[in-house]
Amino acid sequence: MVSVRIREAEEGDCGNILRLIRELADYEKLSDQVKISEEALRADGFGENPFYHCLVAEILPVPGEPQGPCVVGYGLYYFIYSTWKGRNVYLEDIYVKPEYRGQGIGSKIIKKVAEVALDKGCSQFRLAVLDWNKRAMNLYKALGAQDLTEAEGWHSFRFEGEAMRELAGK
Amino acid sequence: MVSVRIREAEEGDCGNILRLIRELADYEKLSDQVKISEEALRADGFGENPFYHCLVAEILPVPGEPQGPCVVGYGLYYFIYSTWKGRNVYLEDIYVKPEYRGQGIGSKIIKKVAEVALDKGCSQFRLAVLDWNKRAMNLYKALGAQDLTEAEGWHSFRFEGEAMRELAGK
Repeated sequence: MVSVRIREAEEGDCGNILRLIRELADYEKLSDQVKISEEALRADGFGENPFYHCLVAEILPVPGEPQGPCVVGYGLYYFIYSTWKGRNVYLEDIYVKPEYRGQGIGSKIIKKVAEVALDKGCSQFRLAVLDWNKRAMNLYKALGAQDLTEAEGWHSFRFEGEAMRELAGK
Repeated sequence: MVSVRIREAEEGDCGNILRLIRELADYEKLSDQVKISEEALRADGFGENPFYHCLVAEILPVPGEPQGPCVVGYGLYYFIYSTWKGRNVYLEDIYVKPEYRGQGIGSKIIKKVAEVALDKGCSQFRLAVLDWNKRAMNLYKALGAQDLTEAEGWHSFRFEGEAMRELAGK
């Protein structure tokens, strides 16, 4: 059994995080949509008022092994605001490399996010999942999450690109 | 035709905003879920690092009328982070009082949000809508938004209350 540590990401992790972001987008079959750079991740997550926070899951080397810890997963979140409940957390991405799944690493990341959320006075956290990703859906449900699209009918909408500029008259 | 102004909310608007938040939750048939207070809205939106930003729509009095401007709608948003596109805006709530609908006030709020988003270097903004609210869905689509739940199968999940505390081991 490998030994796993969940810790807050540091600026030096951004290269690893970007590789995992691309892997996750591949898995979601939407990798053509990834436009972010390592520089943007560094600037936006590690300045004075960060736009996001990130946890990384790393496998600790067995004693005597020359290589250092190896990052195999991440959870990227930020604070959002509910007009019903106040401060909340949104888990934008959660990902564990395929060869490290089935060992509870995803659950460990989710638990850590719940801990951070409670510490910051948040009463809930939200996330989104693709409907064909039954494995993830089942995990979240098993951990106590509610599918709001199914239960209440929430649909997610997005404006972008040309539509945004037209709206803004720019 | 009434004259409408969209402006940034001030701390003194929080009482009006809370009344509109309750009206919106009533309209969504979910008003038992509103737990927020005017004090929390003041503290969370108007401190040094606000958790949200808010626009209000107000009807301007006709010249000679004794009463001041009247707030009839709001749009509450915050900054989020996409690991594909970077900084983005999320429009948590948008609401216009029923007697003022059909006059383009909702569109004006959305356009102003798009303007703010572009000014802040965001390339998209997102929002969520209930599937039975066809009027809102049609408005967003007409303005160029994409229904991501329909197009890509995104479902919204939420952890809260007991499930959160259990996850966090608290």
